Amino acid sequence: MHAITIPEPGGPEALVWDEVPDPVPGEGEVLVEVVASAVNRADVLQRQGFYNPPPGASPYPGLECSGRIAALGPGVSGWAVGDEVCALLAGGGYAEKVAVPAGQLLPVPEGVDLVRAAALPEVACTVWSNVFMISHLRPGETLLVHGGSSGIGTMAIQLAKAVGATVAVTAGSKEKLERCAELGADILINYREQDFVAEIEQATDGAGADVILDNMGAKYLDRNVRSLAVNGRLAIIGMQGGVKAELNIGLLLGKRAAISATSLRARPLGEKASIVAAVREHVWPLLAAGHVRPVVDRELPMSEAGAAHRVVEESGHVGKVLLVVR
Amino acid sequence: MHAITIPEPGGPEALVWDEVPDPVPGEGEVLVEVVASAVNRADVLQRQGFYNPPPGASPYPGLECSGRIAALGPGVSGWAVGDEVCALLAGGGYAEKVAVPAGQLLPVPEGVDLVRAAALPEVACTVWSNVFMISHLRPGETLLVHGGSSGIGTMAIQLAKAVGATVAVTAGSKEKLERCAELGADILINYREQDFVAEIEQATDGAGADVILDNMGAKYLDRNVRSLAVNGRLAIIGMQGGVKAELNIGLLLGKRAAISATSLRARPLGEKASIVAAVREHVWPLLAAGHVRPVVDRELPMSEAGAAHRVVEESGHVGKVLLVVR
Repeated sequence: MHAITIPEPGGPEALVWDEVPDPVPGEGEVLVEVVASAVNRADVLQRQGFYNPPPGASPYPGLECSGRIAALGPGVSGWAVGDEVCALLAGGGYAEKVAVPAGQLLPVPEGVDLVRAAALPEVACTVWSNVFMISHLRPGETLLVHGGSSGIGTMAIQLAKAVGATVAVTAGSKEKLERCAELGADILINYREQDFVAEIEQATDGAGADVILDNMGAKYLDRNVRSLAVNGRLAIIGMQGGVKAELNIGLLLGKRAAISATSLRARPLGEKASIVAAVREHVWPLLAAGHVRPVVDRELPMSEAGAAHRVVEESGHVGKVLLVVR
Repeated sequence: MHAITIPEPGGPEALVWDEVPDPVPGEGEVLVEVVASAVNRADVLQRQGFYNPPPGASPYPGLECSGRIAALGPGVSGWAVGDEVCALLAGGGYAEKVAVPAGQLLPVPEGVDLVRAAALPEVACTVWSNVFMISHLRPGETLLVHGGSSGIGTMAIQLAKAVGATVAVTAGSKEKLERCAELGADILINYREQDFVAEIEQATDGAGADVILDNMGAKYLDRNVRSLAVNGRLAIIGMQGGVKAELNIGLLLGKRAAISATSLRARPLGEKASIVAAVREHVWPLLAAGHVRPVVDRELPMSEAGAAHRVVEESGHVGKVLLVVR
């Protein structure tokens, strides 16, 4: 088969579409013939040499895919060759075939086409596990999503609105904020021009955000804690703004607030499977009903993954950038 | 009635046993004739002028008491004059009478005498809400308790052992660690002589502590995060070691860990009532069965509250220091 390989870490040109051996599905795995994958920030870090795949994972990038089941490994039940699926991966999505633990498979949701289903697994699993399973966003509460126009952001807006929450977003341009508003965002904050702490305070009559989904880490830590409501929960899923920052424990304690920090990729199989099962139970019906939909910026041939990385690194996109096997 | 008043904030001598007006139970409150109260660190801060009672709370110190119901305010059911009770208070326990929201009352547990019941409400509610309701300590997990010989610590050791957890404690002397061991603590760390990060790592074969109950705040933040297991939860309930410290978000994220910070006193009535109800359901049967018991360092007359504060400030005690109305 072909896959995107990284002979030497570097810029987008480091991604090389090359011939490699086919993967073999192990115990409890299925082989998926990939139709599409999607670009995640972690793929960019992996390309740059800053994010090695976890032990046992495919050496090729790609944390999600859609496609058709080509073979079942030993001990797999509930799936059949030919099933149209999408999947959460520990790696290897940038390839014509990938072996996936069966617990990380999802059926393609009703009403979503097979290519666009590749936009769903990472964002649905990340948002559901953080905003709902860990931070327990409830109807009537306010969610603040940083990077509202990202793949994660566009899914977070839609899921939070679907459960009856108020949604605030930050983004870096008027155009991106307009797209967030189309998806349902109620409070729009241009982080280049506005102070999100002041905007959240004003928009919530001083109450603050009940849940914050953050991809900035250190750079936003203090401002996020200041923006939290009493009993608020800050869920950190990225560190694009650095790793270490001063925490005001007194402020956190005065608000009886909590901070969690997670990544999906490093979770053991059992945890991934339970997140995928929860997503199938709670998110898939919202997709089938049309309340939530994949947001796709563009589709590029998988062999041009480098061009897709450039798009993501320039941050002009809204939603997901897909890589399609042609 | 008499109560301990604080005419001017200051040292232990600032506490004055004086004649004051009786409290009147409002809607949903009962009047308790106090038999005993207990000293909490927050009382010391209040005496020093650093911790004002929340709005609506009694101006006198005292966050818990035991006694007999002397009168029912309007709208109270389920309790009768003469009932022997203990109670979680927002203040006013250092007095001959106190008005208490009915949701914060607990019956005196079977097998516990009325005076010693005053040692229970704060520690049972603090430990249950933090270690179990927020941090979900599970059988087989490891709990690290800082200040294992404190009132909070002695209750945390017993409750964690009762649910089948492994318990590590830090304390400042061999004598205190021996008392912790008698209560069931498995891993004993003298923080004056040992590095708790290294000791926890060794005692757990590198796994770390699943839950940490911390009263030190800033001083221990980084070491606590380093001591957490994957999926670990740090529950901060005090800031005896300062308010601000650097948080390594990368380390937290790598462990998929969480930090909560809470105080009990500032919670609204509804939250206190639900914690008290959970304590009655889960902790009271353990007391009645003798699996958990109040740990009392000594009993002093309430009029000598200053002497009791000296005992607590010198930190030589184990468990609670009680103030008894004579």
